[in-house]
Amino acid sequence: MATYLERSKDDLLKELDSLAVEYADRATMLYELDMSRGKPSPEQLELSMDMLRLDPYRLSYSRDAIDARNYGYLTGLPEAKELFADILEVEDENIIVGGSSSLALMYECFANAVLFGVGGGKPWKDQGKIKFLCPVPGYDRHFAICKQFGAEMINVPCNENGPDMELVRSLVENDESVKGIWCVPKYSNPQGITYSAETVEAFAALKPVAKDFRIFWDNAYVIHGFCDEDDELANIFEICKKHGSEDMVYEFASTSKICFPGTGIAAVAASSKNIKELTQRFSIQAVCYDKLNQMRHVHFFDDEGGVREHMKKHAACLKPRFDCCLEILERELAPLGIGNWTKPKGGYFISYDGIKNTAKRSLQLCEDLGVKFTTAGATFPNGKDPEDKNIRLAPSYPSIEELKECIEVFCLCQRIAAIEAIVNDTPNC
Amino acid sequence: MATYLERSKDDLLKELDSLAVEYADRATMLYELDMSRGKPSPEQLELSMDMLRLDPYRLSYSRDAIDARNYGYLTGLPEAKELFADILEVEDENIIVGGSSSLALMYECFANAVLFGVGGGKPWKDQGKIKFLCPVPGYDRHFAICKQFGAEMINVPCNENGPDMELVRSLVENDESVKGIWCVPKYSNPQGITYSAETVEAFAALKPVAKDFRIFWDNAYVIHGFCDEDDELANIFEICKKHGSEDMVYEFASTSKICFPGTGIAAVAASSKNIKELTQRFSIQAVCYDKLNQMRHVHFFDDEGGVREHMKKHAACLKPRFDCCLEILERELAPLGIGNWTKPKGGYFISYDGIKNTAKRSLQLCEDLGVKFTTAGATFPNGKDPEDKNIRLAPSYPSIEELKECIEVFCLCQRIAAIEAIVNDTPNC
Repeated sequence: MATYLERSKDDLLKELDSLAVEYADRATMLYELDMSRGKPSPEQLELSMDMLRLDPYRLSYSRDAIDARNYGYLTGLPEAKELFADILEVEDENIIVGGSSSLALMYECFANAVLFGVGGGKPWKDQGKIKFLCPVPGYDRHFAICKQFGAEMINVPCNENGPDMELVRSLVENDESVKGIWCVPKYSNPQGITYSAETVEAFAALKPVAKDFRIFWDNAYVIHGFCDEDDELANIFEICKKHGSEDMVYEFASTSKICFPGTGIAAVAASSKNIKELTQRFSIQAVCYDKLNQMRHVHFFDDEGGVREHMKKHAACLKPRFDCCLEILERELAPLGIGNWTKPKGGYFISYDGIKNTAKRSLQLCEDLGVKFTTAGATFPNGKDPEDKNIRLAPSYPSIEELKECIEVFCLCQRIAAIEAIVNDTPNC
Repeated sequence: MATYLERSKDDLLKELDSLAVEYADRATMLYELDMSRGKPSPEQLELSMDMLRLDPYRLSYSRDAIDARNYGYLTGLPEAKELFADILEVEDENIIVGGSSSLALMYECFANAVLFGVGGGKPWKDQGKIKFLCPVPGYDRHFAICKQFGAEMINVPCNENGPDMELVRSLVENDESVKGIWCVPKYSNPQGITYSAETVEAFAALKPVAKDFRIFWDNAYVIHGFCDEDDELANIFEICKKHGSEDMVYEFASTSKICFPGTGIAAVAASSKNIKELTQRFSIQAVCYDKLNQMRHVHFFDDEGGVREHMKKHAACLKPRFDCCLEILERELAPLGIGNWTKPKGGYFISYDGIKNTAKRSLQLCEDLGVKFTTAGATFPNGKDPEDKNIRLAPSYPSIEELKECIEVFCLCQRIAAIEAIVNDTPNC
């Protein structure tokens, strides 16, 4: 079969006519489907119900007879720190366990830097225009934090090894207004790629002009592989030690996609110096976080091994969904040469790149049929995909049957949008 | 019996000698007692254990089949909003239910005003020096927020009806740099007083020069009476409506002292305009807060009536403790005329005023015996009690037996410090 780009305009217009018929048929289905966000499915939520059945007194007393039901222990209970330390391969004392949201921890680290400065530096708010590097495509909520604080976002392209480190280095090592970078280093949002050892090494080796430059290492999918073979992410803190650059990194994780979203526990890992600074700042904001929920996690999992076992059950829910998406994409779109997509071994997303100027149009067509995807552009700072071609697919939430419909609709609309773009323009694949 | 101020120097020095003997006796007890913070006692924590025994599926599904275990509903579940709305006597839509800490909500309201402004006003950070009014004595964590943001704190004296409203009015209505005031309007921390209807009316009637002036109405003890007769606090939002000043108030509450400290749910009540602004800002910080914990509260209490019934059990723990303190103070100190103290009908504290220049010295004497109280000065901005006489007593946590020892030690040390002060100075009662 010839790809769309190889076909004549007449052929394409004929194809468009037949796609229009299929589209009209689909319109009679009155879909109400949503695969816009990376939400666990109801089936996944069922996996953690025993967490809500733990003995109240087991939850109440932490090590050394700490009463988890009362005030105190701002930075987390010892066993909760240990759990995250084991997952993130750092020392317990390099962990602060916070509330239920890792996004909130990222926001607070950013806000504290803006308001009060980092590592003895001037508050970012008093340093004029600041810039943040944003590997793209990326996570819209990271970009929203930058936008909220008026930080200029600089797109950094990614390949299968992570961000373009030559570009990162030249920006960071030549511009003092570059204050940080957002990274999802494992099973990235949305590509599902994992940064290579070389990429992590290059991060640790950075020599920023700005002494208050910080890497926001959002390790949201640290143990979220769903294939037999797991991606390996190098431990950035280990490598930083070699370079004396531990203070440059804030690492984040949470159990939102391990147990219950919004009801998990979140943590930040950092150098001793950073932990001390954050502890002082957090001490103004709260007396303590929810320690009973910390205990719930500790007893539900026992230890890091327990978390890994539990993640296999999530994998069993997620793998077939990703397979379903990838099969349909392969079958429907690969022969037409109008898009390419990632094939992740973990995480919550597939990153799809169509031909130029098709993302918005195709998702509008989907939405008109009642099928919702992540908004076109959301994977770029300020919602602006310069080529209007990237789409984040989030296969986790719908049932397989729904997913099948969603992706078939997606492929149909991609085909229509691609033909329209080719016929009207000279697209650049 | 003559008061200390009526006695001769010789008499006082003899008394001091005999107190020194008693002090030396007490020193052999090797106390390790702490009544520094307003922590519920273990007995109180037991009251809510059934909250940890609720059926997991009852917790999982909110009204309209909302799955409380998944992402979404940033501003809280409908039934959690309703619970707080009933307690605070506002409409459900004027509530945001947040995480576990009302202090965190206060901090965020403050931080957002500093960073982004309030009600369309310029960010506080761009308005030069800002000032905050601090009714004194007050809550150290409120003052710590001001200090963190570099806001100048202005002491406002209180009487049994609340802050000196003449002073508040003149400051607020003549100085644009006055941006807010901290209030604990019911069973205040530390006095345990409740603002009179006239005081609340005077607050609602304020006409601040600063359009972005905000009252931080920390209603931490809204249903925390422990006597048969409960103090009445007028509903500030009701009165504000008359004056068109609803936008001037943020009200805060939490269940930390209703169920488990640090594990409760917190809420902010505000005008529709303020709720809209806060919602936009909170949407950058988190996807949602812990909704399973919201459901836990909703089902444990059923409704506001259930909360009130539950509070009677807390009252049964707290009342005897306050009685014990007040009896000993009355017996040991009243005849000597060296101090006076509040006699609250609710809340967590007694405010004690000794004679000038005795607070630090007496608490040092206590600490040397192994009995810890809230640091002298903590009830004032920057830890500076200008007369060094106010002490916050927190009777909730120790057992009655321990409490008896604590307060007897306190009285002994107050007597020693008072005699020292009288003999060395001319004190001003």
